[in-house]
Amino acid sequence: MLAKSFNIHIDNQDLLDEAFTQASYVNEHKGQNLKFYERLEFLGDAVLQLIVSSYIFQRYPKMPQGRLTRLRAAMVNEKSFSTFARECTFDKYIRLGRGEEKAGARNRDSLLCDIFESFVGAVYLDQGQATVEKFVQQVIFPKLDEGMFAEFFDHKTELQELAQADGPVDIDYELIDEFGPDNDRSFKVNVSIGDKLFGVGIGHSKKAAEQRAAQQALTHFDTEGDNLV
Amino acid sequence: MLAKSFNIHIDNQDLLDEAFTQASYVNEHKGQNLKFYERLEFLGDAVLQLIVSSYIFQRYPKMPQGRLTRLRAAMVNEKSFSTFARECTFDKYIRLGRGEEKAGARNRDSLLCDIFESFVGAVYLDQGQATVEKFVQQVIFPKLDEGMFAEFFDHKTELQELAQADGPVDIDYELIDEFGPDNDRSFKVNVSIGDKLFGVGIGHSKKAAEQRAAQQALTHFDTEGDNLV
Repeated sequence: MLAKSFNIHIDNQDLLDEAFTQASYVNEHKGQNLKFYERLEFLGDAVLQLIVSSYIFQRYPKMPQGRLTRLRAAMVNEKSFSTFARECTFDKYIRLGRGEEKAGARNRDSLLCDIFESFVGAVYLDQGQATVEKFVQQVIFPKLDEGMFAEFFDHKTELQELAQADGPVDIDYELIDEFGPDNDRSFKVNVSIGDKLFGVGIGHSKKAAEQRAAQQALTHFDTEGDNLV
Repeated sequence: MLAKSFNIHIDNQDLLDEAFTQASYVNEHKGQNLKFYERLEFLGDAVLQLIVSSYIFQRYPKMPQGRLTRLRAAMVNEKSFSTFARECTFDKYIRLGRGEEKAGARNRDSLLCDIFESFVGAVYLDQGQATVEKFVQQVIFPKLDEGMFAEFFDHKTELQELAQADGPVDIDYELIDEFGPDNDRSFKVNVSIGDKLFGVGIGHSKKAAEQRAAQQALTHFDTEGDNLV
């Protein structure tokens, strides 16, 4: 299955079996000397942390550390990893004990996240870090451009985080103008922090105008312009 | 300095400067377009996590995930990294603003830990992961054999963790015998959990006998015998 989808070949089939085997399955097959995925998950987690860290470090050369840390947390978590595991159809290959199967573990986010990491651990051990990087380039990185983490790159959210870093302040978006024909209407929005004007934005919707106003306001903060997406 | 101690050569001097420069120094030298270490620290942290994870994964092939995670946490933290930074005399090379210098930041564990990570981030970018691995093999891994993390490998502590995993239980060590001449005395200790005997140990001190008794008791738990140090 993997050979087809990602051009990944694993020599050691035992390692691949281990990556997809839950402890409940091992307990039901004592004497077969099977291993379960948890150690590989430990390793795979660290491999993914580094590959993602290294990628966003290079891709966003001016993004400050705090935002890099938050972006990595938005990419490396149970929700996203379970999504990737489903996309890779890893759920089909998990070996579960009967009780866990009945309890619906096969579709549980936490298990799918674990399996995504253990799979990466197995590939890392068997084929090396470069092969994992190729896999991640296909499975994780395109999601940045597809908008999976769009919330993170939201200018209004970022402005709120930065403006309120030292305590609560009022951030107001005010529609100050509308112009143009009905089928090509434009909106102009001011954003103020406290009572001071920080930015102006124009767009074809109020939402777009607010985003642009927030983007302009961000230039007042020392964020080193990390809005590259 | 680094070339001498660790056979590390860094081509990009700017990167090395960045690794050793705190924000306070940059603020006092505006216009020089300097960078501070925080982004490199972000990267170095992930590099160190993976290298340490990979090493202990291989070195302790039967250590379960939970213990691997705790061992990594014992190795990768502010206390140990600041110790390594001092051993590498990194404190001498940090560039601080005057206020921070006066406040004693140069000897602050949190800063030294950050600098250890940012240095690793710089080496990783400039020379690659294999060079960092060589550095870590000299600076961190020998500490396992030198007993820096001995507390982690303490059998009594491990027994307590495992026995009390599902709630509090009584663990009793009882001296049941002493024998041999005064200059070569031996002690025999029983360890019971609840009211059941779990292990017996003999040693030349009560402490050593207790450790052996705990070690034997551990074989009753499914720890896969990870007491390799």
